[in-house]
Amino acid sequence: MRADGRRFDELRSYSISPGFIGQALGSALITAGRTRVICTASLEPRAPSWLTSGGWVTAEYSMLPGATSPRGRRDPGGRGKEIQRLVGRSLRAAIDLKRLVGPSGGLSLVCDCDVIEADGGTRTAAITGGFVALAIALRRLRTQGLLVGEAILAPVAAVSVGMVALDSAAPVAMLDLPYAEDSRAAVDLNVVQLGSGGLVEVQGTGEQGTFSRPELAAMLDLAEIGCEALFVLQQQALAEAM
Amino acid sequence: MRADGRRFDELRSYSISPGFIGQALGSALITAGRTRVICTASLEPRAPSWLTSGGWVTAEYSMLPGATSPRGRRDPGGRGKEIQRLVGRSLRAAIDLKRLVGPSGGLSLVCDCDVIEADGGTRTAAITGGFVALAIALRRLRTQGLLVGEAILAPVAAVSVGMVALDSAAPVAMLDLPYAEDSRAAVDLNVVQLGSGGLVEVQGTGEQGTFSRPELAAMLDLAEIGCEALFVLQQQALAEAM
Amino acid sequence: MRADGRRFDELRSYSISPGFIGQALGSALITAGRTRVICTASLEPRAPSWLTSGGWVTAEYSMLPGATSPRGRRDPGGRGKEIQRLVGRSLRAAIDLKRLVGPSGGLSLVCDCDVIEADGGTRTAAITGGFVALAIALRRLRTQGLLVGEAILAPVAAVSVGMVALDSAAPVAMLDLPYAEDSRAAVDLNVVQLGSGGLVEVQGTGEQGTFSRPELAAMLDLAEIGCEALFVLQQQALAEAM
Amino acid sequence: MRADGRRFDELRSYSISPGFIGQALGSALITAGRTRVICTASLEPRAPSWLTSGGWVTAEYSMLPGATSPRGRRDPGGRGKEIQRLVGRSLRAAIDLKRLVGPSGGLSLVCDCDVIEADGGTRTAAITGGFVALAIALRRLRTQGLLVGEAILAPVAAVSVGMVALDSAAPVAMLDLPYAEDSRAAVDLNVVQLGSGGLVEVQGTGEQGTFSRPELAAMLDLAEIGCEALFVLQQQALAEAM
Amino acid sequence: MRADGRRFDELRSYSISPGFIGQALGSALITAGRTRVICTASLEPRAPSWLTSGGWVTAEYSMLPGATSPRGRRDPGGRGKEIQRLVGRSLRAAIDLKRLVGPSGGLSLVCDCDVIEADGGTRTAAITGGFVALAIALRRLRTQGLLVGEAILAPVAAVSVGMVALDSAAPVAMLDLPYAEDSRAAVDLNVVQLGSGGLVEVQGTGEQGTFSRPELAAMLDLAEIGCEALFVLQQQALAEAM
Amino acid sequence: MRADGRRFDELRSYSISPGFIGQALGSALITAGRTRVICTASLEPRAPSWLTSGGWVTAEYSMLPGATSPRGRRDPGGRGKEIQRLVGRSLRAAIDLKRLVGPSGGLSLVCDCDVIEADGGTRTAAITGGFVALAIALRRLRTQGLLVGEAILAPVAAVSVGMVALDSAAPVAMLDLPYAEDSRAAVDLNVVQLGSGGLVEVQGTGEQGTFSRPELAAMLDLAEIGCEALFVLQQQALAEAM
Repeated sequence: MRADGRRFDELRSYSISPGFIGQALGSALITAGRTRVICTASLEPRAPSWLTSGGWVTAEYSMLPGATSPRGRRDPGGRGKEIQRLVGRSLRAAIDLKRLVGPSGGLSLVCDCDVIEADGGTRTAAITGGFVALAIALRRLRTQGLLVGEAILAPVAAVSVGMVALDSAAPVAMLDLPYAEDSRAAVDLNVVQLGSGGLVEVQGTGEQGTFSRPELAAMLDLAEIGCEALFVLQQQALAEAM
Repeated sequence: MRADGRRFDELRSYSISPGFIGQALGSALITAGRTRVICTASLEPRAPSWLTSGGWVTAEYSMLPGATSPRGRRDPGGRGKEIQRLVGRSLRAAIDLKRLVGPSGGLSLVCDCDVIEADGGTRTAAITGGFVALAIALRRLRTQGLLVGEAILAPVAAVSVGMVALDSAAPVAMLDLPYAEDSRAAVDLNVVQLGSGGLVEVQGTGEQGTFSRPELAAMLDLAEIGCEALFVLQQQALAEAM
Repeated sequence: MRADGRRFDELRSYSISPGFIGQALGSALITAGRTRVICTASLEPRAPSWLTSGGWVTAEYSMLPGATSPRGRRDPGGRGKEIQRLVGRSLRAAIDLKRLVGPSGGLSLVCDCDVIEADGGTRTAAITGGFVALAIALRRLRTQGLLVGEAILAPVAAVSVGMVALDSAAPVAMLDLPYAEDSRAAVDLNVVQLGSGGLVEVQGTGEQGTFSRPELAAMLDLAEIGCEALFVLQQQALAEAM
Repeated sequence: MRADGRRFDELRSYSISPGFIGQALGSALITAGRTRVICTASLEPRAPSWLTSGGWVTAEYSMLPGATSPRGRRDPGGRGKEIQRLVGRSLRAAIDLKRLVGPSGGLSLVCDCDVIEADGGTRTAAITGGFVALAIALRRLRTQGLLVGEAILAPVAAVSVGMVALDSAAPVAMLDLPYAEDSRAAVDLNVVQLGSGGLVEVQGTGEQGTFSRPELAAMLDLAEIGCEALFVLQQQALAEAM
Repeated sequence: MRADGRRFDELRSYSISPGFIGQALGSALITAGRTRVICTASLEPRAPSWLTSGGWVTAEYSMLPGATSPRGRRDPGGRGKEIQRLVGRSLRAAIDLKRLVGPSGGLSLVCDCDVIEADGGTRTAAITGGFVALAIALRRLRTQGLLVGEAILAPVAAVSVGMVALDSAAPVAMLDLPYAEDSRAAVDLNVVQLGSGGLVEVQGTGEQGTFSRPELAAMLDLAEIGCEALFVLQQQALAEAM
Repeated sequence: MRADGRRFDELRSYSISPGFIGQALGSALITAGRTRVICTASLEPRAPSWLTSGGWVTAEYSMLPGATSPRGRRDPGGRGKEIQRLVGRSLRAAIDLKRLVGPSGGLSLVCDCDVIEADGGTRTAAITGGFVALAIALRRLRTQGLLVGEAILAPVAAVSVGMVALDSAAPVAMLDLPYAEDSRAAVDLNVVQLGSGGLVEVQGTGEQGTFSRPELAAMLDLAEIGCEALFVLQQQALAEAM
């Protein structure tokens, strides 16, 4: 049994509130246990200058200083940049960029993921919630006649897994780590998947020691369980936002 | 009648949710119409090096990019720095800094005010909500034995007023401007007051044209009405947080 | 009696030297007691990209490190940005921006205010002297045929006032504070006025304690006296510059 | 057959020149096909302030502008920071940080990895070559009596693998991608392993499309083959450096 | 004859006003034709951390935006840093740093050289005027008992010379170039000398073409004439400042 | 006799390896004793915006952190900028910029000089090696038909000289100083010359004390000897690169 009473293959309590920021083109507040991330998707005034066809999606990731205790620094630094590159790649994997074209050329969207409270798994929550904000924004662009047809290839969701030792036992694979588990995990793995099946990103790090191929397989099995549940939640949120 | 149906001397709909960020020492979400600001108060690991006695309070103010439409820039720049200096001065006016001393010396608190949705009056909402976050933090420090006695001199609240023309009539004084009124106000005035009476800050700007002494007086009258109502809301939020 | 022998409603000794920087389009050295500010007005090569009609005026404000003792830092930081925004707004209030148009479109002027010696009141001296530099620049642009007609609505001037306690008496309102008075003022108020009457900016701060409405009125009365005298000085400087 | 004539499971031509920079505490030039990276390991004057016991190892990664055609920018930006965090984590996995202690406290080493010519696989070459530079530095510290005992847990090496389509066939797993293969890979995977067995980092990205669990397994198989060969090369270089 | 009527070996009209900034420890306004530089020397609160004995002198060099027409940028960039390194080295050559020691250790002085109007020769004027500011500051430190004995080895002065073509004739050596001559000089040479004889810095650049050894000699002859005259001016200014 | 056995007028052991970086348009590795610099010349996508006719050449200079012991900082700061301005000016002196024009307008080349090991004389080695990289790049542009005719006016080379005291004797002029000599030189002089005769840059600094005109002459004599030998080496490297 884990400290919060969950089974090893069980997600934390999740909720996704679509349209959380009324003025944004698309938005969602995602809650994963005590972790909360505001995701907003906005249309950029112009596409990147290097883009020759289709559209583009980027992400920005940041954490409010008060999201952690002790208080964090406002400038995310290298770690924040690394995370926002991951979020951006993951969201782009869900989109057919060639179809992201409006009446006056390629569309560029930016998805801002701002962590307002952090308790582990902020980058994966940003991807899962960011997809909902992005899907709402794309739907609204279609309604406004700025986009024709469906640009979404498949939903994208992400979850963290890890090898964590309970008491003095050997580390075992666990799904969806809060900070207390993440900070003493032997291995930390973030997995991004498409709803149509298929891995988008696999980022595993042996924080304290290494991991074997069977351990990697066990963690990927858990991630698959987690992402399946998140795809359902995303669908519910998008239905609610209609 | 104003576009949103309010009288000239009427505040927007306000709410203050204390403890909105569970991990923060003190926190509040303040809602003023569609404007929403997360305020968190944290203890800094050390007091400013120039401080020779007592404690200190600073503020940081920022706006999520998705808080405005079109999307804003992440770096607040000079305007953001100016606002956070105002918020910091205002909060310090509410505190007896000489009494902000713990067992191992002067305490330093930082109040982060992050606008998650912006519709005018973000700096005044930051002050009003920031005071609640700060008061909760001080109360918790006393509970933890890190602070002895009451360091609060009086509550501090702030509101915007302005001279706004409805239709083609001459501008008249109005209380608590949303963006639609603020952006075409002839005069914009931010007023910070203490609950014990007395002005802390008066910042008036003739954005389009100038203002007379009687116009200034009319605006200050409205600000007094607004602040009185906000002091009541603050008390209710602090009672709820007990 | 004040430390420098002035009455409460008396300005320091002022002088304005027009054309102080020979190569600048417009310039003035303003001296206010020991405070000295070099103001130069230059034509920018292009108007701001967001400007759709008329012209624009901005200001930059800085202080030489040797202007204060102990030596100041070269980077003005947030406080410097706040001041230059105030100076820019104040100068724009004096100008009919719609008329700031030359043969090839809207004109953009920048007024640099560099404090070479600081003894309080540097921001208000920058506004008062900056107007003279700007007026000389506009006059020269007309002479060169780059500007047609008068773009000045009215002169603009600024002065500081404050509530200062002499000895152990209660604070009283005083005009034009040098550093020694400013640093122990209970209240500090900067007032910007147009020569045609009307307030442009009122920025009052209770640095140590608060202020009442009657105290605010007393300070505004003094500011009016001060600005009237400064408008006369500006006219003399502009006549001298012919 | 691949464009350069290699089999799918074959490394490029590698060489490691130990002691390439005479003045550095430890150094190596690693060549992987046309990719070349200079790795130097230096002793930092002081350990990180947050370190309470043991020592520390960090890495810096950069690319000379002339290393790519067209010329790259000198500032690596977010991507460079992400890579140097990966290199640092990988090198630390090879070291028993608790034993990295000298006569006057914890030792801090920095491993600079500067790419002088880039043709794919620069981050993995930096890890493989960086370990050699670090091992030489540690050996020299022992010789100088600044370090007692062996701080190396096991050698660490890294290699890239990917799913690349030859002609119009389906993508197949290939080992050690040069730029021409990397830029059109459907999937890109960087694998870091310890010589004692065990994965340290697995970073896979579906650059164009997703990847399945069997494809991940096929790529990990190739990575294991590659790392085994690199451990041999590292040993030879370290023997040569004696 | 030169455009301004001077002979080839003649300085522009110079003046040095000691004590120009009343609050600075030492100061001087130097005027060289239309070039004007405010020099202030201040005591730094602490000596550089790497200093193990004696004291230190640094310089900062900057140019007000309005000093040139068209207006310059406020950030001096690489060129400004290069100049302030030259000014710093030159001033240190005049000082016996071992004797720059006060009651509580090594003294550190900074000489700020701010160009308020620029017409060529600003870096050499900064050195010549900076020495006067520095000498006044050292004299005052002795008066205050913070410094014992004479730390000045010899006065230092600087002047520019160049090879300039009048009309279509071959370039000839000329002393003390204003901007109009400097901008079309074939060769530009800045020379720094000590009053005791001896060259401190010689920086010659063939801006358009190269220069021969005899041309270098001719330019150095002129520089010697110029510096001799400047040493006299410095002495007069220092006598006046007593 | 010097510490490394050279005569006073003798260069260190030099070599120039053309084409050291295969992918660069032009490149060379220059070795001067233990100093090694990688020079690469690249075509910039566009010419500077201020360029109205002809082409342009710039340089960037940097030093790998591991190039020195103790390790250097990655950001070169003001000193690095000063050096790269010198390298750029020197290379431009060798080029007829008016002829640096391709089919679609002025060409802009950048020469990156990255010091991989530093033992004095890095800036002069950068100039001497940079010229070889630039000449190879220009030759290749002609081969590619992007440049017509010879844009090189003459080769450019550079060397350091100095006044160094052996034992307790008086300082004497010496050619090509390694770090051990440079760090205790009384005078340091960098000389840049064209192969066609004529000085391009002369930068002499009395690091410890001043220098006389005869000493300057003696140092310039040595520099001439050194540059003559370097012109021969450059010719050999360029012949080898054919």
